[in-house]
Amino acid sequence: MEEQEATIRNPNPASPSDEAGPPDAASIWARMAWTHLDAVRRRVPLVQCITNLVSMDIAANVLLASGASPAMIHSINEIQDFTPKADALYINIGTLSAEWVPAMQAAAKAALEANRPWVLDPVAVSASSYRMEACLELVKLRPTVIRGNASEILALSSACRISGAKGVDSAHESFDALDAAKSLAKSSNAVVAVSGAVDFITDGDRIISCSNGVSMMQKITATGCAVTALIAAFVAIDPWNALKATASALAVFGLAGELGMEMASGPASLRMHMVDWLFRLNESTVATRVRLSERS
Amino acid sequence: MEEQEATIRNPNPASPSDEAGPPDAASIWARMAWTHLDAVRRRVPLVQCITNLVSMDIAANVLLASGASPAMIHSINEIQDFTPKADALYINIGTLSAEWVPAMQAAAKAALEANRPWVLDPVAVSASSYRMEACLELVKLRPTVIRGNASEILALSSACRISGAKGVDSAHESFDALDAAKSLAKSSNAVVAVSGAVDFITDGDRIISCSNGVSMMQKITATGCAVTALIAAFVAIDPWNALKATASALAVFGLAGELGMEMASGPASLRMHMVDWLFRLNESTVATRVRLSERS
Amino acid sequence: MEEQEATIRNPNPASPSDEAGPPDAASIWARMAWTHLDAVRRRVPLVQCITNLVSMDIAANVLLASGASPAMIHSINEIQDFTPKADALYINIGTLSAEWVPAMQAAAKAALEANRPWVLDPVAVSASSYRMEACLELVKLRPTVIRGNASEILALSSACRISGAKGVDSAHESFDALDAAKSLAKSSNAVVAVSGAVDFITDGDRIISCSNGVSMMQKITATGCAVTALIAAFVAIDPWNALKATASALAVFGLAGELGMEMASGPASLRMHMVDWLFRLNESTVATRVRLSERS
Repeated sequence: MEEQEATIRNPNPASPSDEAGPPDAASIWARMAWTHLDAVRRRVPLVQCITNLVSMDIAANVLLASGASPAMIHSINEIQDFTPKADALYINIGTLSAEWVPAMQAAAKAALEANRPWVLDPVAVSASSYRMEACLELVKLRPTVIRGNASEILALSSACRISGAKGVDSAHESFDALDAAKSLAKSSNAVVAVSGAVDFITDGDRIISCSNGVSMMQKITATGCAVTALIAAFVAIDPWNALKATASALAVFGLAGELGMEMASGPASLRMHMVDWLFRLNESTVATRVRLSERS
Repeated sequence: MEEQEATIRNPNPASPSDEAGPPDAASIWARMAWTHLDAVRRRVPLVQCITNLVSMDIAANVLLASGASPAMIHSINEIQDFTPKADALYINIGTLSAEWVPAMQAAAKAALEANRPWVLDPVAVSASSYRMEACLELVKLRPTVIRGNASEILALSSACRISGAKGVDSAHESFDALDAAKSLAKSSNAVVAVSGAVDFITDGDRIISCSNGVSMMQKITATGCAVTALIAAFVAIDPWNALKATASALAVFGLAGELGMEMASGPASLRMHMVDWLFRLNESTVATRVRLSERS
Repeated sequence: MEEQEATIRNPNPASPSDEAGPPDAASIWARMAWTHLDAVRRRVPLVQCITNLVSMDIAANVLLASGASPAMIHSINEIQDFTPKADALYINIGTLSAEWVPAMQAAAKAALEANRPWVLDPVAVSASSYRMEACLELVKLRPTVIRGNASEILALSSACRISGAKGVDSAHESFDALDAAKSLAKSSNAVVAVSGAVDFITDGDRIISCSNGVSMMQKITATGCAVTALIAAFVAIDPWNALKATASALAVFGLAGELGMEMASGPASLRMHMVDWLFRLNESTVATRVRLSERS
């Protein structure tokens, strides 16, 4: 299956235009994405997911198709036993409830104590003050990565600056999502990823951009939640390079969406083909089609 | 994509058989359905869904494919902040639990106070007395629309007549689902829709029938829940004409099922193609294939 | 659709190689599987599912496609009214929580009292001591069938032997999953099924093996949960032969996966085609492709 796909995409692998010079920056990033995906497939990281009720099916299937092992375990009675066994933890506040918040906090603490990376998706963080407060408490528990869309990152970053009592930086009158992401990364000590037509990933200092993906992915519920789950799997196998692992996960997911789009007739068939492609992706396709770069 | 579909369905748009006379009643209803769908796509209504655990994925994907914006928010701690921001509220009792009932009631009240339409799906209302009682409490909170299958509407209508202490109308010995729907519409002041081989929609006075749809849709879980979510989106953009908006939503959903059926090999592929078609539907297809009519 | 499929698979139904001698054991088992599936389709058993949040969509769709009627009802307030109406009960501990455990116990008791079969899926039973204890309590409520993978059956069987205070059988130093299954079947008085490359089904005495299925099914979330739901439907229509009904359900599910695999490009399309095939399976295909046998 993978061979066939490679053949189709590279009909003339030895053609002159493919003659290799020294590898450029883009191809180095793309090879990194492949190395991360390949490591996920070989090492099958166990990812504990405390995620919203809408996203459970697609998040678990995205993890399985990519080579990881999902475990949807959210009871507070199981955290102490289970979280230390997981290679990474994923927390998503999409369908928050009073029963789940204490388990989220306990799991984040257990991950911290066990030195496991954990990843936060602040879905619709500004939907209510209850949600924002729950999210701010989680941010204090030092997530390794936070991924959201521009609105979510702007709202969370702004709330962190206020709650952090550091004073509002007046230089931030033109406070856009990228500035917000950098500010949030610095105040939370997390890698922050902002999804959009182009994704940005920052640790507060470096900024990586990813232009893989297609707009129709937004017409499928919980694709954002699913890619955050995938980030947890990638960070699990490279926890000391969370910035790069996050960028790789976003690129691989977006690329699967692009390949799926070539076969799709609408959002439901795109979802199916995208998950199939996460399973089918091979080195050649990843190396030639991932579009990551560092902003200088 | 939409152009291609139109071409396939209308290979000879200028052929003699298409010469237009004055529009008949059927084509006026069909154009209304298109107007509603088009408005959903342009205005992207935000639909808060407090729905059962089985239906979350398909309900959210049906809303997204149709152009609406779903928000699955069910914590009672978020109702006061969030419900007034939504353009419509959808409540479904499919997987009822003691934790969720107070949030359903609070959300219905908040929608009423904020003058937002809200739609009720009384799934399996006669499964238990607990469920029936919870549902009757919700009916008192004045849903804009109630949609169920014949058994559900019969049971709920009968219970409302009894609980309403209006006495049992002896004329209703041949109390079929349509009579039940009219009775429920009058007692609850809601539009009532009964799904079946032919759907009926009534405000207690007028009756619209819809014959779009295919029987295999019943072999996909939560299609009923999903179409009720779609009704909420349609009523959101035309709240003063809930009868017509409900009819349009049922027709559009059924039509997507018919088009999907042409490409399906079973219920799972039907589900995929149906959701794709909700995204792909264009004016020409809706105008020629919607089958709505008013019973005199 | 079914005719077409039969034609493709048996292009020359009267060819010499098909001349029938006396039916062999394999074909008797295969015809039994067809008889069970056909009975599910004709009698439409109502299966109450208290299952994990990840599996709800696929479990319900697998039941519907196979001809059964799923009811996802888990509130403790509904058990007394509803469970006696169901033809079988399915309990799955995948996303266990303190709110759900009492309902699981109440439902198992109600099923016992109403003389209904009930089926247990001990998902990830060794993830925590809380989970193991909850599971052991459920095993005491005499499930008709327990289905798990080898790790789950080994863990549960071992825990049952210890909690049962029967002493550890020293002959079991090479205690593999099949021995564990037989031991668990004897101590629990349940039929025990172990899923794997080859499935084993035992009542502690007889052992049936099933070699239908494809490995990619493990890359789809909740396929194990879905087949346990299907076992509940099959046992519902043949409760006095739970061993055989369980074997039939596993074979039919695995066969649908094999047929789906012929059309799949990855796990997501496999899921779709598999569910379609559960709907499409006909007598000829089941009779010729089911692979069940009894170990002597």
